[in-house]
Amino acid sequence: MSRLVMKFGGTSVGDVDRIARVARIVASERQPGRGVAVVVSAMAGETDRLVKLARGAGGEGNGALGGATFDDEYDVVVSAGEQVTTGLLALALRRLGLPARSWQNWQIPILTDAAHAKARITDIVEADIGASIDAGVIAIVPGFQGITAERRITTLGRGGSDTSAVALAAALAAERCDIYTDVDGVYTTDPRIVAKAQRLEKISYEEMLELASLGAKVLQTRSVELAFAKRVPVRVLSSFVEPGAPNPGTLVCPEDEIVEKQVVSGVAYSRDEAKITLLGVEDHPGVAAEIFGRLADANVNVDMIVQSEARQPGRQNLVFTCPDRDAQRAADVIEAARETIGVEEIHVRRDVAKVSVIGIGMRSQVGVARTMFAALAHKGINIEAIATSEIKISVLIDAAYTELAVRALHSAYELDAA
Amino acid sequence: MSRLVMKFGGTSVGDVDRIARVARIVASERQPGRGVAVVVSAMAGETDRLVKLARGAGGEGNGALGGATFDDEYDVVVSAGEQVTTGLLALALRRLGLPARSWQNWQIPILTDAAHAKARITDIVEADIGASIDAGVIAIVPGFQGITAERRITTLGRGGSDTSAVALAAALAAERCDIYTDVDGVYTTDPRIVAKAQRLEKISYEEMLELASLGAKVLQTRSVELAFAKRVPVRVLSSFVEPGAPNPGTLVCPEDEIVEKQVVSGVAYSRDEAKITLLGVEDHPGVAAEIFGRLADANVNVDMIVQSEARQPGRQNLVFTCPDRDAQRAADVIEAARETIGVEEIHVRRDVAKVSVIGIGMRSQVGVARTMFAALAHKGINIEAIATSEIKISVLIDAAYTELAVRALHSAYELDAA
Repeated sequence: MSRLVMKFGGTSVGDVDRIARVARIVASERQPGRGVAVVVSAMAGETDRLVKLARGAGGEGNGALGGATFDDEYDVVVSAGEQVTTGLLALALRRLGLPARSWQNWQIPILTDAAHAKARITDIVEADIGASIDAGVIAIVPGFQGITAERRITTLGRGGSDTSAVALAAALAAERCDIYTDVDGVYTTDPRIVAKAQRLEKISYEEMLELASLGAKVLQTRSVELAFAKRVPVRVLSSFVEPGAPNPGTLVCPEDEIVEKQVVSGVAYSRDEAKITLLGVEDHPGVAAEIFGRLADANVNVDMIVQSEARQPGRQNLVFTCPDRDAQRAADVIEAARETIGVEEIHVRRDVAKVSVIGIGMRSQVGVARTMFAALAHKGINIEAIATSEIKISVLIDAAYTELAVRALHSAYELDAA
Repeated sequence: MSRLVMKFGGTSVGDVDRIARVARIVASERQPGRGVAVVVSAMAGETDRLVKLARGAGGEGNGALGGATFDDEYDVVVSAGEQVTTGLLALALRRLGLPARSWQNWQIPILTDAAHAKARITDIVEADIGASIDAGVIAIVPGFQGITAERRITTLGRGGSDTSAVALAAALAAERCDIYTDVDGVYTTDPRIVAKAQRLEKISYEEMLELASLGAKVLQTRSVELAFAKRVPVRVLSSFVEPGAPNPGTLVCPEDEIVEKQVVSGVAYSRDEAKITLLGVEDHPGVAAEIFGRLADANVNVDMIVQSEARQPGRQNLVFTCPDRDAQRAADVIEAARETIGVEEIHVRRDVAKVSVIGIGMRSQVGVARTMFAALAHKGINIEAIATSEIKISVLIDAAYTELAVRALHSAYELDAA
């Protein structure tokens, strides 16, 4: 008996008609010798409604907004949305004549740590649900939630349903985890910017991880990390294709399963960036630790860091980037400690974007960076900062040139569809 | 440590402002030496919304509408509403600085039989929740639901939250169960009909049971039966009085706690009645069993039955009443078996009402019926059928005279407020 895990997000189960279509898709995947588990989100809009109620009752600044002392009951409120969807999908499947039942987290159980509103799955007991699946009963499981060892309800934080699905697939030793979403796969870049963007047939976990954390919102980062660690093949595909019609999607899989390795698989971008420049920073050991320690304490998520010598002796310049929403906080933190740290000037620039090229083929290829810089230079785009990893090169540029840069790079690496 | 159970219905928790008021009411009842548990319904309208979704997914004629094979998942869907309210009230109480936590049915657990959509509570394990209450933490429990021995979710059917509250009070050996509702107590009759209706300070379980089953919709019948069986004092009071203001309500209690026993405590009425007359029924042993057996098989809820001799020898006439919604079905059942049973004529009259006087004092008083008949005769109201129990006399009359009859009886038994 093989097992398949399928996951449907909030838009895919947004009303009873869509739930009926999901039931038909599930029915089309159920085969003799293959059991199916389905992870579902709350119906679109439902989690927002529940979050609003929880904030109304608990007060702004509490709940999952600040004071963690309220988060256990916040989780009780917001987790109800997925329970509703599990029952509705079970009903829709039975209406098709298929055996199905819902499994709430406490019935399985799916155990998490006690970090309410942002919990992590620690264990899934697969014995009962696995036996039921193998007996041919389709299992419907609410995503995004679990219970603690003390049997309190937890939620995993927004987007947690992808992680639930991958964790369940790992626990069930499923052949694959199919994530149905409102796009039909992972593309070489954003098709809204580059009309010739192509759907990738396969992508490695490492590449997907870089794409996910760069803001290509197809899969939640944690779910890709987990799939990578547990070696769960994940397929991303469309939930709006009629059951039976071709729907190959993109398979996220181990690198060694990708035969034709592209040098660059995709071009990603993020406009949610800000650049902070610190001029005339005292140049002595520990100053960087001091600055970035203070930023970390203030929950500023620092990304790129570039250090350079200043004109004055004993001084240096520091440039770093962070999400745009953290920019003012970052500047305030440095400003408050300016005397202590020894910083002459602080500049914040918010109209910047990060453009990245990603590809496992980079590891064995030289000249990838040169192609990137040449392509950007050719369009007259100035690079403000550079960061690299083993399979990624990111540059910070003026936000006004984002689309131009993405199109230029997509062509330069020969990713355009014929 | 004494314990108090409080229950708030859907209207009382209809939005976050009302939930905040409920939190203030709960806070005002919590005292040193007294622990509190609160049973809550789903927010007003929420259960209807969930029922509609379940029917949309499972199909009309399934779910709690017919095929019991769908009812387990119907219960999964509709039980989510109360879970939301438990979390919201816990948040609202914590916002007031009070220790509170929600207890889902599976966390307590509250066990029921497996009759999905109309389950009955079989056991409540009070150890954990009781210890938490005694430690000063306010316990918030979702009404209307439980789990089976197989750990599936069940619901108790509409109005089940009152039953949940009384069952929890019994399990916790609570001093009292306070049912907060949209009226401020139990009245001698419907105040919309009789302006001089008075709130009763106390009423016996037996009287309340007659009132509840007669359609005075203050408490759900099953909850009163349970309170009677377990000797739980139940207080009915208003949830719309500001905390701290006088709110005595009505205490439903054992008969021996009522010192001043009224001959008649209240006048009830029901317009949801139909009268079926069978003329010329063959008069032989077993004919009544035949007729009412067939009606029972068709789920017709027969109330009053009056038998009288017909003019022809060997024939009798039979009159019975049933809820108006069952009238056509009742007539069809008899019509279909007319030849077999031997019935000459079937007449259905739907414009009838039942008016009843209830009082434990009747047991020791004579002349109660005479007062009733005289009062009705004085107003020229014709009695079409009579039924009596130990503490109740009901008459069937033309529905047009309902208000007149209720007012006349309220005066005749000296129930009018000064």
